[in-house]
Amino acid sequence: MITKNKIKLISSLNQKKFRDDNGLFVAEGTKLITDMTATYKTRWFFATSEWAENHKTINGLTPEIVDQEELKKISNLKTPQGVLAVLEKPAFTWDNSDLRNSLTLALDDVQDPGNLGTIIRIADWFGIRNIFCSEYTADAFGPKTVQATMGALSRVQVHYVNMVEFLTEAARTVPVYGTFMDGQNAYNEKLTHEGVVVMGNEGNGISPDVEKLVTSRLLIPNFPAGEPTSESLNVGVATALVCAEFRRRMVGA
Amino acid sequence: MITKNKIKLISSLNQKKFRDDNGLFVAEGTKLITDMTATYKTRWFFATSEWAENHKTINGLTPEIVDQEELKKISNLKTPQGVLAVLEKPAFTWDNSDLRNSLTLALDDVQDPGNLGTIIRIADWFGIRNIFCSEYTADAFGPKTVQATMGALSRVQVHYVNMVEFLTEAARTVPVYGTFMDGQNAYNEKLTHEGVVVMGNEGNGISPDVEKLVTSRLLIPNFPAGEPTSESLNVGVATALVCAEFRRRMVGA
Repeated sequence: MITKNKIKLISSLNQKKFRDDNGLFVAEGTKLITDMTATYKTRWFFATSEWAENHKTINGLTPEIVDQEELKKISNLKTPQGVLAVLEKPAFTWDNSDLRNSLTLALDDVQDPGNLGTIIRIADWFGIRNIFCSEYTADAFGPKTVQATMGALSRVQVHYVNMVEFLTEAARTVPVYGTFMDGQNAYNEKLTHEGVVVMGNEGNGISPDVEKLVTSRLLIPNFPAGEPTSESLNVGVATALVCAEFRRRMVGA
Repeated sequence: MITKNKIKLISSLNQKKFRDDNGLFVAEGTKLITDMTATYKTRWFFATSEWAENHKTINGLTPEIVDQEELKKISNLKTPQGVLAVLEKPAFTWDNSDLRNSLTLALDDVQDPGNLGTIIRIADWFGIRNIFCSEYTADAFGPKTVQATMGALSRVQVHYVNMVEFLTEAARTVPVYGTFMDGQNAYNEKLTHEGVVVMGNEGNGISPDVEKLVTSRLLIPNFPAGEPTSESLNVGVATALVCAEFRRRMVGA
């Protein structure tokens, strides 16, 4: 049993305004909640009786039992997974020294929630612990992105910053890389073991003000060079290719 | 003006059964239709009068004028782009010699239309001319996939085959690579200038019958090795990383 007011509040969390106002967000599914409740504080935790019979608890948390109809009202999924957690939005702190000896991502207005989720998953895979997002980047705590991270959001810290201010600061400490259609072949460029990699908006790339702060312009070349091909790669794919090349150099493969 | 019967037929093409029965599929948007009509035969070509005033023709084709309401009825997009083409499904032929001196992709039940579109775009970027799909792989001519390819489908041939039969044949000519969670580090393995790379289903990976036909098992390693991380990479991302490494070796970077 769940009160009408609680249903209303939880449903409202599919909008950024209400996530920000309440400092809460939603995660669904056993695997995702297992990962997420290890990192984020749990406000409420609901499950159907079927789920509770099979799983009992997650990380020592016992769910409030709801019926299918109630779960449907608070779920963002077409097919609810039997279990839903309302978690507290984190207040991560950082300073410039966190950028030392690390690879860090900066997203300049990546707008698609699915792309952002894919990028968080890639960051997790390649041991990137911090992603800095411009204010117009999709919200990492929106339901589509949270689900798309498949748990990676529990191991990667996502910060929202004024991108120009952030990069101006960051550039004092580490190199700032960016990907451009007229950049230098990433496979031939010097890639350091620390730095910030800026990825741009899906349609417009990196914005002019941010571009000025990039110290090394990279390109993932197509093959064979000079052949007619697609105008660009998907931003998630491009992020993966750049991160993989940084990491390949580091292990000396 | 467009007849009711034609509207009915074109709307039905969002279902695979009707695309197959009629040998037709739909593409929308100026850039996509420009690319696609250069490769595929155009059956019908519709545009609003606003579009026609600005663009007149595409590749010498003059559109039939429709109004916004008519376009809405045949469009698969939330916001129709003012122009829609009905194209003829191709009947590509191929033989084993096409696999020689080429990198080729084989998709074993990749189910998400968006992932398939991303993979076709990656193939285009890396100069892969043929993709062989198992029968349960998403349909490359479905509206979501066609739009997601952003024109790459005009430069990449997608074939539907019995995967076991195809790979049994292919293995007589070229190496067959596959990605597995227990594969060998792709950055240290020998990668030849020709071969088929098999990518598996989003949830289940490569199926057991297909796995038997793989001669070289690859893994994209996470970083740092041995750290807890996501269970896997998205199939589009994994495809990009493997293709990029094949191509990097070929240009000797």
